[in-house]
Amino acid sequence: MFNIDDALNDIKRATAEIIDEKRLKELLKDYIENGKNYYVKVGFDPTSPDIHLGHTVLLQKVAVFQKYGGIVQLLVGDFTATIGDPTGKNVMRKPLNKEDVIKNAKTYQTQVFKILDKDKTEVVYNSTWLEELGASGIIGLCMNSTVARMLERDDFSKRFKGETPIAISEFIYPLLQGYDSVHLKSDIELGGTDQKFNLLMGRQLQKSYGIGKEQVVIMMPILEGLDGVQKMSKSLNNYIGVTESPKDMYAKLLSISDELMWRYYDLLSSKTTKEIEELKDGVKNGSLHPKKVKEDLALEITARFASEEEAKKAKDEFDAVFSKNDIPSDIKSYELEEGTWIAKALVDIGLEPSTSQARRDIKQGAVKIDGEKLQDEQYKLQKGEFVIQIGKRKFAKIKVV
Amino acid sequence: MFNIDDALNDIKRATAEIIDEKRLKELLKDYIENGKNYYVKVGFDPTSPDIHLGHTVLLQKVAVFQKYGGIVQLLVGDFTATIGDPTGKNVMRKPLNKEDVIKNAKTYQTQVFKILDKDKTEVVYNSTWLEELGASGIIGLCMNSTVARMLERDDFSKRFKGETPIAISEFIYPLLQGYDSVHLKSDIELGGTDQKFNLLMGRQLQKSYGIGKEQVVIMMPILEGLDGVQKMSKSLNNYIGVTESPKDMYAKLLSISDELMWRYYDLLSSKTTKEIEELKDGVKNGSLHPKKVKEDLALEITARFASEEEAKKAKDEFDAVFSKNDIPSDIKSYELEEGTWIAKALVDIGLEPSTSQARRDIKQGAVKIDGEKLQDEQYKLQKGEFVIQIGKRKFAKIKVV
Repeated sequence: MFNIDDALNDIKRATAEIIDEKRLKELLKDYIENGKNYYVKVGFDPTSPDIHLGHTVLLQKVAVFQKYGGIVQLLVGDFTATIGDPTGKNVMRKPLNKEDVIKNAKTYQTQVFKILDKDKTEVVYNSTWLEELGASGIIGLCMNSTVARMLERDDFSKRFKGETPIAISEFIYPLLQGYDSVHLKSDIELGGTDQKFNLLMGRQLQKSYGIGKEQVVIMMPILEGLDGVQKMSKSLNNYIGVTESPKDMYAKLLSISDELMWRYYDLLSSKTTKEIEELKDGVKNGSLHPKKVKEDLALEITARFASEEEAKKAKDEFDAVFSKNDIPSDIKSYELEEGTWIAKALVDIGLEPSTSQARRDIKQGAVKIDGEKLQDEQYKLQKGEFVIQIGKRKFAKIKVV
Repeated sequence: MFNIDDALNDIKRATAEIIDEKRLKELLKDYIENGKNYYVKVGFDPTSPDIHLGHTVLLQKVAVFQKYGGIVQLLVGDFTATIGDPTGKNVMRKPLNKEDVIKNAKTYQTQVFKILDKDKTEVVYNSTWLEELGASGIIGLCMNSTVARMLERDDFSKRFKGETPIAISEFIYPLLQGYDSVHLKSDIELGGTDQKFNLLMGRQLQKSYGIGKEQVVIMMPILEGLDGVQKMSKSLNNYIGVTESPKDMYAKLLSISDELMWRYYDLLSSKTTKEIEELKDGVKNGSLHPKKVKEDLALEITARFASEEEAKKAKDEFDAVFSKNDIPSDIKSYELEEGTWIAKALVDIGLEPSTSQARRDIKQGAVKIDGEKLQDEQYKLQKGEFVIQIGKRKFAKIKVV
């Protein structure tokens, strides 16, 4: 068995907020003393099956509970997905059909079980019980909250004030999510800090429906994307998908700033808080180079979704291309269009003052792409990601799309 | 057949507002030319089975359509009734069970078919189709309106501004009522002016659900109660129930003010607008006594819910008690408790300055109840309605409860 305080420390690490820590302790105690398992709910939106590192922050925390007696309720929100979540009158999300939902849920599971223990996970579909509620059940559910209460939710409040339409059905979503916790009798629910309102609705409804206990709510911070500023998301193109190639994943992780590296250590690494503190001290007193620390993080995360061997290989390939040229690890990235003339590209990204200067440098063999000298001064960019170098000190990463 | 303009005049009489008169004409024309019937929806709230004259304003207008090709869809809102309409968080209306709803609907029908033609009426229960919508159907329905739109409704807007809780379920009610019109493919819906929002929702939803035609909306004014000021309602005790005894109905109708009498003529009488104008002229030029005009109204309405014979009898009894004593028709009414000592009662209602004066008057035979001299100065009031008279000029009507 485990020590309750150690488990609590492990659970609390990097969390943004925990509601009802007292009950959390009781659940752990009951497991230690009586072997009684408890249920940890986490939801998955089947409209976007591909997960990125931002999602794994939550999933890793869920996995922690599996070490301490928690049975995960992996909830597929297929009921809501087949209806379609209207996020504004003119921006209705297209409802998915049943087949798409099941397909997406399968894709999701192959990814998710790289993090979660399959034997301690129950995959549940909320259409099972929500459809059974029937028309009167849904209306009965809607008696449990008020218009004013819903408008307390940040996004609703902003849209209401900004006169962006909110469909009545949107007010029902938090209630449905809350009702899932009633039906599943969940003991704990995890979500991002942006889910606070909905997570608390679960507690409120468990009370209203007389479940006799209210779920512990654990909120995780939202992970910043590669830019270090915005939330990691596919639409912002600042993400690392868990199905990306080891080479891409490793390279992307190495591209983050030193500051963001520590954030990723906190939220993504398996290292203990103490180990991370030691790394920080090492960098501060100069005994550790930050690039080495970043490489270790990139190796750890890449190995998690591929294998240690593949991660190592990705590192070796990366080093072969970049390190022999002493490329710094924090060079800037640019996105460019396929077919752009190289001289124009070099001006656009600020490496050259003019296309004529660019042509002179190419002629003299001073311009390298991925470490190879560029011969053709009429070269047009091709699709892919590359490092461009001029002389010894000018570097840029480009993504050609 | 009938003349379309005559029918329109008949339909438009005393209405507060008609939306889509063009389509109304088309419906009438289609009936005249092709014998095609159309559907006229009117709702009944099965939580209050007893109807009063206020309700009959609407029902009489519905009955008018039965003369001109309309088939009435008498809608029993049993779905909403078994859920319970929450009109504020702490004032949840108690949900009715199925048996109560069916019982109330039967009570209601015996009353309603005194006004409507049974052969041209379909009684429909909205649980039939609303329950079938299921959970996703209800949520799909809720995609058809927005929070801002609902808060345009007067009562919601007031409650929201006044911070009186509005349950989410209350926002669903107008949508359910509107969906009834979708399912029933109603051509016309009637309601009070206070129902405007919900009636228009029917039009909106018929459009959204692609019914291909939108119902005509006909709104009737709200009838004032006996006080001539407030809406007629059971809770304000200013009503005349259609199941009241002919005697009570006749007496209550005679008690209204002359001004209210004309309002009642407009909204309740079967007389034509022209006939009513003639009555008004008669009173104005002195050829008709207003009391006579009021008696005729009381007779007409009483006969409608009892029989002409019973109405006549009620009038004769009333005259026997009052007229031989030259009782004025506009004496004040009071409500008193059973068992009140007569002398105290006379002081309370302001007919006597003191109980000792009251006892002296009783001893002298100056106090009459319903025309009979009161003998016993210790008399305690018994349940019922009576006219009390002292001498020749002091009168009061009392209701002992």
